[in-house]
Amino acid sequence: MPTNAATADALRWKKFPVLDDGFVTLVDVMGDDQSVVQAARVSYGEGTRKVSDDRTLIRYLMRHRHTTPFEMAEIKLLVRVPMDCWRQWIRHRTANVNEYSTRYSLAIDATQTTPPDGWRTQAASNRQGSGAPLDQEIGARLSREEGEFQAAARKLYEARIAAAVAREQARKDLPLSTYTEAYWKIDLHNLLHFLALRMDAHAQQEIRDYASTIGEKIVQPLFPLVWEAFVDYSLEGLCLTRLERELIARLTQRLASAGRARATEDDFLAVQDPTWADLTRCRERDECRDKLIGLGLIERTA
Amino acid sequence: MPTNAATADALRWKKFPVLDDGFVTLVDVMGDDQSVVQAARVSYGEGTRKVSDDRTLIRYLMRHRHTTPFEMAEIKLLVRVPMDCWRQWIRHRTANVNEYSTRYSLAIDATQTTPPDGWRTQAASNRQGSGAPLDQEIGARLSREEGEFQAAARKLYEARIAAAVAREQARKDLPLSTYTEAYWKIDLHNLLHFLALRMDAHAQQEIRDYASTIGEKIVQPLFPLVWEAFVDYSLEGLCLTRLERELIARLTQRLASAGRARATEDDFLAVQDPTWADLTRCRERDECRDKLIGLGLIERTA
Amino acid sequence: MPTNAATADALRWKKFPVLDDGFVTLVDVMGDDQSVVQAARVSYGEGTRKVSDDRTLIRYLMRHRHTTPFEMAEIKLLVRVPMDCWRQWIRHRTANVNEYSTRYSLAIDATQTTPPDGWRTQAASNRQGSGAPLDQEIGARLSREEGEFQAAARKLYEARIAAAVAREQARKDLPLSTYTEAYWKIDLHNLLHFLALRMDAHAQQEIRDYASTIGEKIVQPLFPLVWEAFVDYSLEGLCLTRLERELIARLTQRLASAGRARATEDDFLAVQDPTWADLTRCRERDECRDKLIGLGLIERTA
Amino acid sequence: MPTNAATADALRWKKFPVLDDGFVTLVDVMGDDQSVVQAARVSYGEGTRKVSDDRTLIRYLMRHRHTTPFEMAEIKLLVRVPMDCWRQWIRHRTANVNEYSTRYSLAIDATQTTPPDGWRTQAASNRQGSGAPLDQEIGARLSREEGEFQAAARKLYEARIAAAVAREQARKDLPLSTYTEAYWKIDLHNLLHFLALRMDAHAQQEIRDYASTIGEKIVQPLFPLVWEAFVDYSLEGLCLTRLERELIARLTQRLASAGRARATEDDFLAVQDPTWADLTRCRERDECRDKLIGLGLIERTA
Repeated sequence: MPTNAATADALRWKKFPVLDDGFVTLVDVMGDDQSVVQAARVSYGEGTRKVSDDRTLIRYLMRHRHTTPFEMAEIKLLVRVPMDCWRQWIRHRTANVNEYSTRYSLAIDATQTTPPDGWRTQAASNRQGSGAPLDQEIGARLSREEGEFQAAARKLYEARIAAAVAREQARKDLPLSTYTEAYWKIDLHNLLHFLALRMDAHAQQEIRDYASTIGEKIVQPLFPLVWEAFVDYSLEGLCLTRLERELIARLTQRLASAGRARATEDDFLAVQDPTWADLTRCRERDECRDKLIGLGLIERTA
Repeated sequence: MPTNAATADALRWKKFPVLDDGFVTLVDVMGDDQSVVQAARVSYGEGTRKVSDDRTLIRYLMRHRHTTPFEMAEIKLLVRVPMDCWRQWIRHRTANVNEYSTRYSLAIDATQTTPPDGWRTQAASNRQGSGAPLDQEIGARLSREEGEFQAAARKLYEARIAAAVAREQARKDLPLSTYTEAYWKIDLHNLLHFLALRMDAHAQQEIRDYASTIGEKIVQPLFPLVWEAFVDYSLEGLCLTRLERELIARLTQRLASAGRARATEDDFLAVQDPTWADLTRCRERDECRDKLIGLGLIERTA
Repeated sequence: MPTNAATADALRWKKFPVLDDGFVTLVDVMGDDQSVVQAARVSYGEGTRKVSDDRTLIRYLMRHRHTTPFEMAEIKLLVRVPMDCWRQWIRHRTANVNEYSTRYSLAIDATQTTPPDGWRTQAASNRQGSGAPLDQEIGARLSREEGEFQAAARKLYEARIAAAVAREQARKDLPLSTYTEAYWKIDLHNLLHFLALRMDAHAQQEIRDYASTIGEKIVQPLFPLVWEAFVDYSLEGLCLTRLERELIARLTQRLASAGRARATEDDFLAVQDPTWADLTRCRERDECRDKLIGLGLIERTA
Repeated sequence: MPTNAATADALRWKKFPVLDDGFVTLVDVMGDDQSVVQAARVSYGEGTRKVSDDRTLIRYLMRHRHTTPFEMAEIKLLVRVPMDCWRQWIRHRTANVNEYSTRYSLAIDATQTTPPDGWRTQAASNRQGSGAPLDQEIGARLSREEGEFQAAARKLYEARIAAAVAREQARKDLPLSTYTEAYWKIDLHNLLHFLALRMDAHAQQEIRDYASTIGEKIVQPLFPLVWEAFVDYSLEGLCLTRLERELIARLTQRLASAGRARATEDDFLAVQDPTWADLTRCRERDECRDKLIGLGLIERTA
């Protein structure tokens, strides 16, 4: 009996709402924290049994990117998601998928709608993302136009069906906001990889909502030890590049020589990577500075 | 120098049009017919060199589903395709993909349009497919409404962009007919698997057009021996089930006993699988009958 | 509660012996026949519910190579297998694997041994396979030498370990007959593909033993409807090439014209593919003849 | 014409020796640094053309783990490698493989041998790895015994072949040191992933030799910009866990309060993660300390 059997029973078919009309729900799960341990022990042998308890072993595996034991658990979800979001989702290739077919059946009569305060501006600094919320007055207009357009789209679709157009052709102008549904089955390692990418601040808000729901409502209760290790060693970790490593070493050396504890912007610029020095704007330098501030190595300036 | 170097040079970046505004074009190719032979020889050893010329070896490999040597060639395409069609395309997981991003860039200002004589009715016998063409008069109306709707969709999109909505959000109601572009790179074995499924009569007409173009305009000239073997042993082959094999054996026995050469519908029904006998309608029996008629084992009735 | 829950409980951790010291055992299973149906219904929609019962739907999916619903079930095995056999097994890439590590632990002290009547000669007709059993007297000598060699191999390994050689290096001369163990997790579709290839008469006897055991002892009881469809439509099916299809059509035409029911070798040669006609030996012609004899279309000659 | 065409021509079929009788050689390559850029531009659109030159874009993609553009280049190698090493190699699933078949052909008559000064002791601190070299006098004996054993193994194999045993069975006791050969084809992203794991200090020396040779002799000259980015952002990067990030923040705070520039072991222990505090031995604490010493944040103690 898996240790998460009761949790799985409680979760199964429970719909966790996402967006205005989407959801994720657990259909089935194979394995628990213990399954990861079990698989690791066949690789790493009897020796590990003596020195490690399960939590320590799971954390060791996660920290050192020993990924195969995490492939030994499997999760199957049913998700309801706008096609626009699904277009990003499906790019993760290591999963099994059965999607609702609009060749066989009429398209689902639901589209993702946006409330007046839900519109976002283009990010200034980030070519791919969103920035501040849009003014609500403009938002109200956009939401009204969205509703009218989606109603027109559905009307067009239904008129085609009524005119005996084949479903596979009638669907061609459905808006990307149309909801679809799919069974999605994936091993735990690849699911965590999906979550790491899609819970990230650079991911689009809509898919982040799905990823966070899957992570926090389903993976965390089913695999508490794995989830804890994932958060500590992957999700909330920080990678330093070779340039950043060497910069920090120069910085600590400089501070030690000067007998000072905390670096200033001038210190940072003095030890920056030589290839950055001539650049007025340098995205990599900005990223590095942010990391050092986060680590407390540079004073946060006002 | 690969044997297809001149062909590859002639094909590269040549756009083969598909649908009203789509295309496929060869970006790059690794390998030729000879690469398949080369890889097979490392597996099957020196012995094969003596008994087989290249064509015979390639045909042997294809006939016996020795698929790995065909993975040793690789093709990279640039394709322009409606998102609706791309949704089916992307379900083939064993490929490398870089798609045009409507988060980074404005959506391509082109949608797939349907001419008045291009509308298809729902198939009567096939829940997923299309049947006869729709009456042109109705088609003319449908095409007009399609054009108006697509213009409205673009106007909505551009109004959102003008209102400073983030591109990743503005795109949410683009119609599935909107064109996208992608680099798509795949090994030859998996490409042939894609083509076998998507050139099939059950595939939707739009993706069949892409598949046929890729097969006939690009794969055939680059890999003439492989293509020939693929057509002979996969694309135009016919699979018989255990039930059909046994039925044919009973049928030939029956005819031999009766001293007759060609079977009638009554013969067919007399030797049908016992599990079909009680069914008034039986799709599997119909499929079997069609195969036997194709093989000339049953008389084609009027 | 899956319909195979009791069967799974009865099977779990039951060791099915294979070879002299190997085994396969079920560790876990996700899904049952019903899971395939469930996934298909999301794709093929409500309509299918009305016209098909589950068995019919599963058979339809298998017959028409609608493979994705079969990916919705997952099986995890623990296997004990000689490394030589494992080298073939691991070539199937779509699986999750955790193998016993001889870097972390001492190599398993067991090797596959061959009884005096277990030695096989090289096949005459088949460059890759085995033929008739070897004479038992020779076999007795071979088995004795095998035993002496394996004992020497173990002694060498243990002497290295005793001399403080690193395990990862000490193992370098272990014979391929050494047993290894692995957790092996795979979805049902890919498992059936593995079984189709490895239960085939062209597969090596050792891996066929494993494949048959997995198929008949584990898959069949857990997924009875899927297994039945797999046997009927894949394992015991027969594929005809374009050349063979056309040959049969010519043959039935010829017989009909002649008013005869059963073809002779002369008939076969008269309608053979034109490209075969000039060849004294032609493997493809031989393969075709065997198929036609099996179908009763040509008389079996003495 | 790819920018690396001349380099590819110079490298193709050049054998780079590895171990005593192994090699890696380039068979073919698709793409160059520019192919990565080309693929990225379709995703990231026109905008990127203006702000980034190619090197900057490649570095940005690598730094931010935008991996798909690196999948757009492909490399095909022919490698000769001991089966023991190949067993680890083949665990990387995202590659195309054609291996020399000892069912079709006689096994290659070459085994990996170890010189007297090439034997390694078991690592004390690392359950999976090697430690100091073994005494040469013992090494001389081990090498002599290795040679005798390998000769006996070959004699046994050849005696079986002479006795007409099928090749597929005769091979069963070949030592893992026996060389095999394979074509191995992989996209650049997955190759870099392979190299990151197999050039790592935790990988076994033998496969590290192969990985380093592939990286430095083949990938670096063919893809100089990608290689540089890979070294800077992946190979020589350093990942900090959540626990380590927070520890560093506490440490810099403590030093700032104390007006000191460099931390001592006592400082480190004072700010260590609370969950480590009660443990006498804690591998994670040791790993953290090593990282902080490398960054110059803790004084290196004698």
